[in-house]
Amino acid sequence: MSASKLKRGRVLALSGGIGGAKLALGLAHVMRPELLTVAANTADDFVHLGLAISPDIDTLMYTLGGLANPATGWGRKDETWTFMRALEQLGGETWFKLGDGDLAVHVERTRRLAAGDSLTAITADLTRKLGMGVRILPMSDDKVRTRLDTDEGTLDFQDYFVRRQCRPAVRGITFVGAETARPQRELMAALAEPDLRAVIICPSNPLISIEPILAVPGVRAALRDCVAPVVAVSPIIGGRAVKGPTAKMLGELGVGVSAASVARRYADLLDAYIVEPEDAADVARLGLDMAVHTARTIMSSLADRADLAQVVLDVADRLSTGCPTDRSS
Amino acid sequence: MSASKLKRGRVLALSGGIGGAKLALGLAHVMRPELLTVAANTADDFVHLGLAISPDIDTLMYTLGGLANPATGWGRKDETWTFMRALEQLGGETWFKLGDGDLAVHVERTRRLAAGDSLTAITADLTRKLGMGVRILPMSDDKVRTRLDTDEGTLDFQDYFVRRQCRPAVRGITFVGAETARPQRELMAALAEPDLRAVIICPSNPLISIEPILAVPGVRAALRDCVAPVVAVSPIIGGRAVKGPTAKMLGELGVGVSAASVARRYADLLDAYIVEPEDAADVARLGLDMAVHTARTIMSSLADRADLAQVVLDVADRLSTGCPTDRSS
Repeated sequence: MSASKLKRGRVLALSGGIGGAKLALGLAHVMRPELLTVAANTADDFVHLGLAISPDIDTLMYTLGGLANPATGWGRKDETWTFMRALEQLGGETWFKLGDGDLAVHVERTRRLAAGDSLTAITADLTRKLGMGVRILPMSDDKVRTRLDTDEGTLDFQDYFVRRQCRPAVRGITFVGAETARPQRELMAALAEPDLRAVIICPSNPLISIEPILAVPGVRAALRDCVAPVVAVSPIIGGRAVKGPTAKMLGELGVGVSAASVARRYADLLDAYIVEPEDAADVARLGLDMAVHTARTIMSSLADRADLAQVVLDVADRLSTGCPTDRSS
Repeated sequence: MSASKLKRGRVLALSGGIGGAKLALGLAHVMRPELLTVAANTADDFVHLGLAISPDIDTLMYTLGGLANPATGWGRKDETWTFMRALEQLGGETWFKLGDGDLAVHVERTRRLAAGDSLTAITADLTRKLGMGVRILPMSDDKVRTRLDTDEGTLDFQDYFVRRQCRPAVRGITFVGAETARPQRELMAALAEPDLRAVIICPSNPLISIEPILAVPGVRAALRDCVAPVVAVSPIIGGRAVKGPTAKMLGELGVGVSAASVARRYADLLDAYIVEPEDAADVARLGLDMAVHTARTIMSSLADRADLAQVVLDVADRLSTGCPTDRSS
């Protein structure tokens, strides 16, 4: 019986959108989904066409609910685009693609937020309606927004990310509202659970997906203090990001485009760090106080996602039970 | 050259949704569309799922813009329903059918109303984007809402009309907000134009489509005073309504289900009234101060719509030029 099967506690994953959702889906396949909680970045959230849009929550919800579009990673499968065509005819803004089925989530969320419901309660209801066992928690019910200082001026996140397709060079990142945001109560409670099995930092963009979560007051300290092992998967492989602007942003901000540079940003939090074999030596050279473990971290298939999830849980469980975790396992 | 071709002034039509839109479309085919203004009932408007919906404006816009669903009379042709299916899965309210393309209008309207634009300006922009020559004017930019006193209690209009499919018996009708609504400036200006060619009261439900327009302060008096002939088409044929709950409501309210009973409600306004031949004697017997004219008023085809529109314009033009208008013309 593997160590992972001995453990029955809750697993908490911190995640942004597409990349993080892949690992979250893998986790849901190798453990009881109802013991998995995913804390989602909400600093990408924005109001567009009057609709409250939470891109990372939605990507997680669609991925974990089996509704995701496998071709894009975002949006829904079997989607239609009649709304966007009609909106274009009316001269509306069409730079952010909203599928017809996807709209139902945004309309329902917007309606309930206006009625005074919390994003946490709304997300819980939506995921329950979709029959999901996994719990998705917004990092906070208060508004935190990523703002980018770029060579084209200060930009809201989606303006940078979608409208300008990450073309501007990033000079700085601010999480507006983070200082005063109240931490997600259920997230803090999960971190304080004595039988918490593991905290997993998904291979999301550290700068704009994970660090907004860590910027909510109390979260970083609670991660440092929690009894469960904290394990991250590197979003960088051999100096390249698997997806998105992670490498470009790390480079522009002078952080360094490597698994090691990401490790440094998480150094106070991690008990273990999972990287591709080619990056292990580079990370080990830093001498950080964390176990470094190697695995194949590219997740092309569902089997890849489940395999990596199993590695992550095994690493965490070995840390919990005092068993050695090393690069070769 | 017919009298109607001699006239070059603007034609103003008062209309509700489906039935009125049919005659408006006919008018747009027998005159220069840019000289046609349709004042639309907005007392059916409501906020649903957080979206500002204007059913009569939309039916007019889709009908006159060539986008209407010919099978239903409401909504758009080539529509898809992915949003409604997704909303149902999320447990949202699905009693009011919102097509994916139709949603673009509601989302854009809601966004602009929230930004402070008037329904008049928004409607003008939407119709322009759809390439329409006809001008559609909301009866007022202020909120007027039809409320029905029924045997199942007081009901908002769409609750009665769509959710309960007109089943409750109607005891009374109130246009909430009508007393304080400001009349549509462009409507009042059109009514005061010295070269206004005709005012046409479409064969819409008098109780819930035309009378809300007349209830806006100043409109009824302006119609009485305007220089152009006012011509109505009866929505009742032989004691039956062509469509919708008109006959049921007239009966329940004790108005009488006949072309004559409708004539009585418009008696202070009309210069001419157009009815089916079978209803003419009944109306003439009232001895009202209006010309009674007969025509085929059922509009099954586009040709029917254009034919009836031509009859209406001819009647109006003969009134203007002092020519006789009689039942046989």
